[in-house]
Amino acid sequence: MKDFSRAELELLFDTTDKLLEMKYREKVALGEGRILGIMFFEPSTRTRLSFESAMASIGGISVGFSETRTTSMEKGESLADTVRVVEANSDVLVLRHPMEGAARFAAEIATKPIISGGAGTEEHPTQAMLDLYTIVKEKKGLDGLNIGIVGDLRFGRTVYSLIYGLAKYDVKIYLVSPPGLKIRQEATHDIGLVPGKSKSVEVTENENLQDIMPELDVLYMTRIQKERFPDEQEYEKVHGSYFIDAEHVKKMKPDAIVMHPLPRVDEIRPDVDQMPQARYFRQMQYGRNVRAALLSLILNP
Amino acid sequence: MKDFSRAELELLFDTTDKLLEMKYREKVALGEGRILGIMFFEPSTRTRLSFESAMASIGGISVGFSETRTTSMEKGESLADTVRVVEANSDVLVLRHPMEGAARFAAEIATKPIISGGAGTEEHPTQAMLDLYTIVKEKKGLDGLNIGIVGDLRFGRTVYSLIYGLAKYDVKIYLVSPPGLKIRQEATHDIGLVPGKSKSVEVTENENLQDIMPELDVLYMTRIQKERFPDEQEYEKVHGSYFIDAEHVKKMKPDAIVMHPLPRVDEIRPDVDQMPQARYFRQMQYGRNVRAALLSLILNP
Amino acid sequence: MKDFSRAELELLFDTTDKLLEMKYREKVALGEGRILGIMFFEPSTRTRLSFESAMASIGGISVGFSETRTTSMEKGESLADTVRVVEANSDVLVLRHPMEGAARFAAEIATKPIISGGAGTEEHPTQAMLDLYTIVKEKKGLDGLNIGIVGDLRFGRTVYSLIYGLAKYDVKIYLVSPPGLKIRQEATHDIGLVPGKSKSVEVTENENLQDIMPELDVLYMTRIQKERFPDEQEYEKVHGSYFIDAEHVKKMKPDAIVMHPLPRVDEIRPDVDQMPQARYFRQMQYGRNVRAALLSLILNP
Repeated sequence: MKDFSRAELELLFDTTDKLLEMKYREKVALGEGRILGIMFFEPSTRTRLSFESAMASIGGISVGFSETRTTSMEKGESLADTVRVVEANSDVLVLRHPMEGAARFAAEIATKPIISGGAGTEEHPTQAMLDLYTIVKEKKGLDGLNIGIVGDLRFGRTVYSLIYGLAKYDVKIYLVSPPGLKIRQEATHDIGLVPGKSKSVEVTENENLQDIMPELDVLYMTRIQKERFPDEQEYEKVHGSYFIDAEHVKKMKPDAIVMHPLPRVDEIRPDVDQMPQARYFRQMQYGRNVRAALLSLILNP
Repeated sequence: MKDFSRAELELLFDTTDKLLEMKYREKVALGEGRILGIMFFEPSTRTRLSFESAMASIGGISVGFSETRTTSMEKGESLADTVRVVEANSDVLVLRHPMEGAARFAAEIATKPIISGGAGTEEHPTQAMLDLYTIVKEKKGLDGLNIGIVGDLRFGRTVYSLIYGLAKYDVKIYLVSPPGLKIRQEATHDIGLVPGKSKSVEVTENENLQDIMPELDVLYMTRIQKERFPDEQEYEKVHGSYFIDAEHVKKMKPDAIVMHPLPRVDEIRPDVDQMPQARYFRQMQYGRNVRAALLSLILNP
Repeated sequence: MKDFSRAELELLFDTTDKLLEMKYREKVALGEGRILGIMFFEPSTRTRLSFESAMASIGGISVGFSETRTTSMEKGESLADTVRVVEANSDVLVLRHPMEGAARFAAEIATKPIISGGAGTEEHPTQAMLDLYTIVKEKKGLDGLNIGIVGDLRFGRTVYSLIYGLAKYDVKIYLVSPPGLKIRQEATHDIGLVPGKSKSVEVTENENLQDIMPELDVLYMTRIQKERFPDEQEYEKVHGSYFIDAEHVKKMKPDAIVMHPLPRVDEIRPDVDQMPQARYFRQMQYGRNVRAALLSLILNP
């Protein structure tokens, strides 16, 4: 996410808007006969579906794998060679991997464009793009907003990419997490250092969600991911301390919006779903379009 | 299947006929750029393939999953949210689920059309549609026919949807099953209650297949599914009592037809495959076309 | 591979050349609305991806399965019936199977064209086609070349199909393998018997790779596949005796080429990758095009 300028993001968002206005048959001309190579070394139904659907909506087809169990990696093949194999069979690739820097490594190996579909604990740029697009679309812009980010800020890769993206705009960020799940120092440090920014992003850290809710324009909830905890007891301690229900949301500004990268477990109770502030399902729908725009820009430079 | 009127079924069959006459390139215009969301919570190669192939034949693409192992359900996501995720990435959805009513529940959640790809023990409407189409096509109509349905009538979801469909026509149904696998009362009761029918469907229950074979116009065999039996011994008892071979088929009317939803194990012996009565492979081929017609009607209302 | 004449191979190679010059949108007309049925009873990311990508590049879509775990075979369905199911949902099929003759058996059952995607220990014809194409393309022809084939020549199915293909040309083949992994007699015997050849292919067997390297125009390395060894100790003995690195390659003719069907483990060290002789990644890229040409010839006879 650090690689993208604000201007590049705005081009992406404009392209997304244009795609939304196009008819099915017009769109297919953008990717007809083109192939997206899926390399998912971690399972992810949501992100995989979104990319496959995005590619299909512009007329292209996805090939690849979404687990390593049946791949040649099992026969002892290196990641570099696996990238070359998928690259040989695609026009653009998306890679998801548990390790930091995997997408950048793949991009150095490959001669075709690589999109990161999430890697390590810090990187999920297309999620951040769709998050930013959602805010721009639903709040008519980003500058000047108060944005609360809640949940597991230590292990949630989504959060880091989002913050790196927000740092390109003039916003105030409220970070809300249990003490053991605070954001890692390198990330907040990075924000202060973003080049070309006229004004620093203001960041505060909070432990109490209720206190800040009335001030927020955007509340970004995240799941406290069980699979990130080495110890189940640690998970049980924090799980359920950071949730919202309809009563909480009623205390928000009437034009505030509630977002979530999904899947949620119970951090947003179902009684919020029908409230006007709830935008997490629409956010997810935008995902496909933002990714289709990204693919279309890559395939038609 | 109860939701469909005879007129709607006939529209579907006419559309199927039209698709069969169209050229490849004409057909792709019906679904170009459109996406079928596959949500299969039960494995089913056959039905999944048929839907994917149907969608592809009209130019569309399928995305989704066919097992829950790698989905967000494992992370604790609700069925409702999973439906919303797949819906956000598709234009029409097909859902298969082990529980009764799952497709109807999904249809209440979703704003896009949901097709049931089989749910619970009673519902497999697209199978019934292709079964009815096969009879109409191969026997030049349905009214007045004697139709034998043989095998596990208690647990076979295919059978229930078929009977609900047949109840819209004037037919005589011979149900043939071992005593422990008789059809459930609510189903036969339902048939008598179908609204708008001038004349009741006649239904008889039989334990001996040989007795009724000479009278049948259509013999619909089904598998006695091992996985439906809590006890393997119970399975062994009935397995093999209800099969047909070439000798049996020779006693049928010369223009009778033999159908089967497949997969078969040994309830139809291979020596029947080349006989003129055998239509179960053609029936399966029709499946793709009937499903393509259904998708095409949904996508081009 | 024995079924194909030299003229047929040359038609395939010419078609591949033509496809390479076509634009994306021109190519999709070759397979629009057409479906490739994938039946992979053995996992193979590489071959599956290559076929799916090939089909997509000519506008077609692939459906099917690449493991038996979730198929109806588990419910006791015969291979013949499974072939019929996939056939009912496709226009052309590709089958991969651990048993000898599986593709031929499927071709006898099916009424639609079956491509072998690898079967048993002897048959992988599309790999041989892309191998031959690579040599023709990179060496401007095949006749008169010295071709070394190195590694596990006893169990490697790729090698047999390649040799059957080479036998249609006037080449000298150097077979290099550990004593326990020599080529099976029936294969070398077959080469002498290829009908219509004016001149026998010359074949030598060698245990020392270094000795022959300076003479080779083409060095075809293969993996010594761990999964083919009943005993891990046996594998450890030979593994690593047959590898090449940059020092070895420097002793080759400057215009020699190094090929490999991939995946490789360490039989070609990474320091070879950037040398001008290394053509194994390009070979893999050709794979998709050769398969697209094959599919296009089948679908547009």
